[in-house]
Amino acid sequence: MNPASIQLLITGGTLDKDYQTTSGELIFKQTHLNELLREANTTLTIEPQVLMLKDSLEMTDNDREIIYLACLNTKNNQIVITHGTDTMRETAVYLSKHAGLTEKTIVLTGAMRPFKLGHSDASFNVAAALMAVQLAPNGVYITMNGQLFHADKVHKNRQLGQFEAV
Amino acid sequence: MNPASIQLLITGGTLDKDYQTTSGELIFKQTHLNELLREANTTLTIEPQVLMLKDSLEMTDNDREIIYLACLNTKNNQIVITHGTDTMRETAVYLSKHAGLTEKTIVLTGAMRPFKLGHSDASFNVAAALMAVQLAPNGVYITMNGQLFHADKVHKNRQLGQFEAV
Amino acid sequence: MNPASIQLLITGGTLDKDYQTTSGELIFKQTHLNELLREANTTLTIEPQVLMLKDSLEMTDNDREIIYLACLNTKNNQIVITHGTDTMRETAVYLSKHAGLTEKTIVLTGAMRPFKLGHSDASFNVAAALMAVQLAPNGVYITMNGQLFHADKVHKNRQLGQFEAV
Amino acid sequence: MNPASIQLLITGGTLDKDYQTTSGELIFKQTHLNELLREANTTLTIEPQVLMLKDSLEMTDNDREIIYLACLNTKNNQIVITHGTDTMRETAVYLSKHAGLTEKTIVLTGAMRPFKLGHSDASFNVAAALMAVQLAPNGVYITMNGQLFHADKVHKNRQLGQFEAV
Repeated sequence: MNPASIQLLITGGTLDKDYQTTSGELIFKQTHLNELLREANTTLTIEPQVLMLKDSLEMTDNDREIIYLACLNTKNNQIVITHGTDTMRETAVYLSKHAGLTEKTIVLTGAMRPFKLGHSDASFNVAAALMAVQLAPNGVYITMNGQLFHADKVHKNRQLGQFEAV
Repeated sequence: MNPASIQLLITGGTLDKDYQTTSGELIFKQTHLNELLREANTTLTIEPQVLMLKDSLEMTDNDREIIYLACLNTKNNQIVITHGTDTMRETAVYLSKHAGLTEKTIVLTGAMRPFKLGHSDASFNVAAALMAVQLAPNGVYITMNGQLFHADKVHKNRQLGQFEAV
Repeated sequence: MNPASIQLLITGGTLDKDYQTTSGELIFKQTHLNELLREANTTLTIEPQVLMLKDSLEMTDNDREIIYLACLNTKNNQIVITHGTDTMRETAVYLSKHAGLTEKTIVLTGAMRPFKLGHSDASFNVAAALMAVQLAPNGVYITMNGQLFHADKVHKNRQLGQFEAV
Repeated sequence: MNPASIQLLITGGTLDKDYQTTSGELIFKQTHLNELLREANTTLTIEPQVLMLKDSLEMTDNDREIIYLACLNTKNNQIVITHGTDTMRETAVYLSKHAGLTEKTIVLTGAMRPFKLGHSDASFNVAAALMAVQLAPNGVYITMNGQLFHADKVHKNRQLGQFEAV
């Protein structure tokens, strides 16, 4: 259990939004993953990389290609991706259907409440992803709500705001 | 990956302390694990049980026996234990040396900053433990700082406030 | 300085909004003034009354009439009103132009960041209003940014998100 | 109501303590008043000055002399002092009995829960003090719990953690 270094691909989603006082809206200013990891006192070797900061409802297949290429090109075989929850499943399925990732463990996660708003599920979900990526067999996964799901065996129940096995 | 129910044994530690305004001290009033799990939106079946609320520097072998018996007696094979960090290793070793737990995965965790003080590592660590207990082979483990350690292959570096492999 | 009881009229505004996880929007669920006052350990006699929970951009003169009548009808001569910042000035001027309030001290305040999102200016502003209402001569005032303004001698600088004397 | 500049004398107290993870104790690292005022979006001209960072139980008459001289020497006639609650009354009485301050309004305040622990009364109390110092007649005051007390007409009820008129 000598931990390998972990690629952290940051794409935005609710996790990284913050409240802007002048507009009264939730916007992306910057990622807060560094702050989240500092609060957690992680001693893992984590290599963060901001690919984009997007609401996942606005993600296109072009964005998914960027994420796929980042997974393909990193030397790290353990990859955590932060992502908006609304199309997290679509991106996970996209990755699982593209070639060249069979040696890697990829875990997508996000949050239902922004990290910067307090009382958020962000730290919990990122921790679950960082542990799962170290322990799970190669493959593409989603972790939300404390559970680990295969990419194609999960959907988001939008009424409850929860992920469920399908 | 249809999740089994998880036994959550609560013993106290920094994680569950809170600031008492009248005395200006950090004390145990109650556990905050329910609040932590609610914020995390977990959909796991978790069975919480408060065994004690103690600073781990005050834990005796009698307390460790109580924890051991709780591990032995639960029908659940996945067990997460919240515990003070100062003697977490001692309790983990105690459990690993006692008979009857070989069918179980046991993960101890805690926090360096109380959950109720904000900006805490508590949610992160509990999430890591809940994921590890679902994925790791049977055995007794500690998770802190994002890493999973075998019970007897870790020590706390008190100067840094971090756990390190030994 | 034996404090009189203070009428607290709650009308909504950013102060009382919270993040709704399922929609990803900021909405009104309930007022959080009771929680705010509890955290502040106030020993004042405060009589809270929720008149409405509205974004102040949606306030009409009908709403302002409701606020005016509540000021007129309360037996308390010290009145604090929580209000959205965008039309706080309009409501303050409305009250200052209507008859029957000359024996009263009325202080409007609000917040630029919701109380429930943490790191908010809500507690600060409400405290300033509660102190001003005890000390200022009869009249209608706004307090924001630590300053006390007469109703008709202030405007909101929306670019800076600050109130300024005019 | 063109606000004069306000002298902010910082002496420590619970308000400025923070939790130290390695020792598990509440200690002084630095003042957090700048952060508190930034969150509050104050537009007042405030001149902060750290005189000491002390638990008020450890304050001596030498410390009180330092505070007195700072009040005497500042050109500002509006002075807010942050202070531990346990001997806040003693310092207030000390100032009210020493010569040369009759042209000044001095307001002491503090907190029952440290600002950095969240859900604190710090912002509320500092706001009340900043408003009181602008509005109250010359004299020495304490504000806690939303009330303004004359220096010699208040005591701390330690069982309740509240200030009461005497």
